[in-house]
Amino acid sequence: MRNWLLPEYVEDVLPSEALRIEKMRRCILDFLLVHGYQFVIPPLLEYVESLLSGSGSDMDLRMFKVLDQLSGRMMGLRADSTPQTARIDAHLLNDKGVTRLCYANSVLHTIPCEITRTREPFQIGAELYGHSGLESDLEIQCLMLKCLAVSGIDKIHLDLGHVAIFRSLIKDSGVLPEFEVDLYNVLQAKDTAALKELLCAGLDKRLNKHIRDALMLLPELYGGKKILAHARKMLPSYPEIENALDQLEVIEEELKEFVDTITFDLSDLRGYHYHTGMVFAAYTPGSANAIALGGRYDEIGKVFGRARPATGFSMDLRELSRLVRSDTCSKGILAPYNKDDKALEKIIEQLRNDGHIVITELPGSENKENTLYYDRKIILHNDVWQVVGI
Amino acid sequence: MRNWLLPEYVEDVLPSEALRIEKMRRCILDFLLVHGYQFVIPPLLEYVESLLSGSGSDMDLRMFKVLDQLSGRMMGLRADSTPQTARIDAHLLNDKGVTRLCYANSVLHTIPCEITRTREPFQIGAELYGHSGLESDLEIQCLMLKCLAVSGIDKIHLDLGHVAIFRSLIKDSGVLPEFEVDLYNVLQAKDTAALKELLCAGLDKRLNKHIRDALMLLPELYGGKKILAHARKMLPSYPEIENALDQLEVIEEELKEFVDTITFDLSDLRGYHYHTGMVFAAYTPGSANAIALGGRYDEIGKVFGRARPATGFSMDLRELSRLVRSDTCSKGILAPYNKDDKALEKIIEQLRNDGHIVITELPGSENKENTLYYDRKIILHNDVWQVVGI
Repeated sequence: MRNWLLPEYVEDVLPSEALRIEKMRRCILDFLLVHGYQFVIPPLLEYVESLLSGSGSDMDLRMFKVLDQLSGRMMGLRADSTPQTARIDAHLLNDKGVTRLCYANSVLHTIPCEITRTREPFQIGAELYGHSGLESDLEIQCLMLKCLAVSGIDKIHLDLGHVAIFRSLIKDSGVLPEFEVDLYNVLQAKDTAALKELLCAGLDKRLNKHIRDALMLLPELYGGKKILAHARKMLPSYPEIENALDQLEVIEEELKEFVDTITFDLSDLRGYHYHTGMVFAAYTPGSANAIALGGRYDEIGKVFGRARPATGFSMDLRELSRLVRSDTCSKGILAPYNKDDKALEKIIEQLRNDGHIVITELPGSENKENTLYYDRKIILHNDVWQVVGI
Repeated sequence: MRNWLLPEYVEDVLPSEALRIEKMRRCILDFLLVHGYQFVIPPLLEYVESLLSGSGSDMDLRMFKVLDQLSGRMMGLRADSTPQTARIDAHLLNDKGVTRLCYANSVLHTIPCEITRTREPFQIGAELYGHSGLESDLEIQCLMLKCLAVSGIDKIHLDLGHVAIFRSLIKDSGVLPEFEVDLYNVLQAKDTAALKELLCAGLDKRLNKHIRDALMLLPELYGGKKILAHARKMLPSYPEIENALDQLEVIEEELKEFVDTITFDLSDLRGYHYHTGMVFAAYTPGSANAIALGGRYDEIGKVFGRARPATGFSMDLRELSRLVRSDTCSKGILAPYNKDDKALEKIIEQLRNDGHIVITELPGSENKENTLYYDRKIILHNDVWQVVGI
């Protein structure tokens, strides 16, 4: 077995792609900063209980765990940045008003989320705490779409859902938690056959026909704006459902100028474990997976002693950088080794200050420098050092 | 036990420090890039054998390990970036000439290196492969000192050592590996009493008096330039030792303009497990630990099928950012919420494009925004939106 072989879904990022990711990272981070989002760097590992707060068993299975030799407790390697950011808002910053935070860091997964993904996504994202109105949903979703645009993604499809619809249908129905998890799983998979079986088998009689019909309908409530009207007609007229549909309609109206298409998916419960309101995902041609996603999660800070309204999004820079056409990387300038020539030293320094890459040829390595790395040379011509093409 | 309590030596980096680290990261990375060092992003985890190549048991103990559920093999979380960079040079890039690489990423340690350190240092560094001459040592050391200078460190003390001196003394002496490790440990600790005991106890008779005297002398060979002359007189005149002392003299001459003071430490064997030549560490007032360190390690690529001369350095950005006096973070501008006012929208966009932070006040949160975050406001005055101080 060769030592250099990397584990599956783990990879090196080599120079040209690394530079593209770095540029994208700076561009998005700067964009978030000028919108008032403050940069935080949560630790790569912390106690498992803290990392799992508010999230479900899928996150638990996805998280690598290690023993803390200093305390004997288990620590986890973060598999998601949202619980950490919520902890920082709840405990460390402890502001009364609105708090806006952003982050840019790797997360690790024991098994990749999807077959095409890495086990080390590079998450960049933003979270807004302390505001429960639709305006903050709008701010976060708009910010996500603009971040994709500044990254160079030019065709965006937005998919909107609302977890409150499912929540309100099963609320007060007294269903057992296991049954709720089963329902969640079949709805998320849009597996109508299994859903039917689950509901008809009457595993839980407390769900009346009214609710069962509504749940059966959810997977069909997928598509353009007209499904909202259909939902209004067909779903029970609970205030939570009315409100969710109203919100979806407003958001669609506000965001349509920023995207190519918008669809709704009322059985989309992704992130249901901690999401409580509107959820959203952005897609682009060329990628089967969502390129950015997020939603509202008003309860997550509770375990840290402070439940605050919250909404946020995140995206994977590695995935994103693959989708944006690469601009040709600028090559360097080769300079001769001559440490006592002040004029040469000066021109090299000037070029570097101007952002040019200057590679010094080391003695004994003349003509061995890889020509992939440079396309110009500094030569002495009529006693003057100058840059010439090669 | 409260959920938000972090493990020991693990911490959150909050906004103002996070921004300072980010600025420093960009500044150093850009500096490395224009010097022809190519940015790579090695994975956070890979197979243990690969991460431990060329390094000693201290690295093994310092590395967190997790099971790879996909292969059943053990993976390690990188505790150092150098072996990964060497793997990339040896296997992936496979250039014949000189290769220059740089990286900027977190590493994890099971226990902190020193009592004052974090378990998650943020390593930034550079490596130069394919050149064995003193010119590459000079390039790397000079680059390290300039990186510290551009980061804002203005008083630098450089400490130089040379692993080849110890290596040549015990080479061919046939000492057992365990005895070599013991010798290494007492020398590194400058524990002369233990060293004397070790040598006198005659645990290994194969070390003749000549060598024993030289080893006893090493911990004393610490100080300014004159110890080099002393070493020449007192140490055996092996060609490796002559050469090492020559190199130290040349480097001192070349680097003295970039630092405040230079000392030599001939018993400094830090990183002995993979270092083979000159080693160096930079210090500054206010920090007990080295703020940057590195050395020559010509053998490390061998396990990846390609032994190449190599030298490099790394530093911890978290530590560094604490030492540089903080420039006051620029605060933002508070803008009223008014999504239908085109003139307001335009001025906000313009301000953000110019790099200003503009925070939009969300409905219901008026006067609840934290005044720590802004020091100006956009107000309507005589029907014109303008920025005023508060």
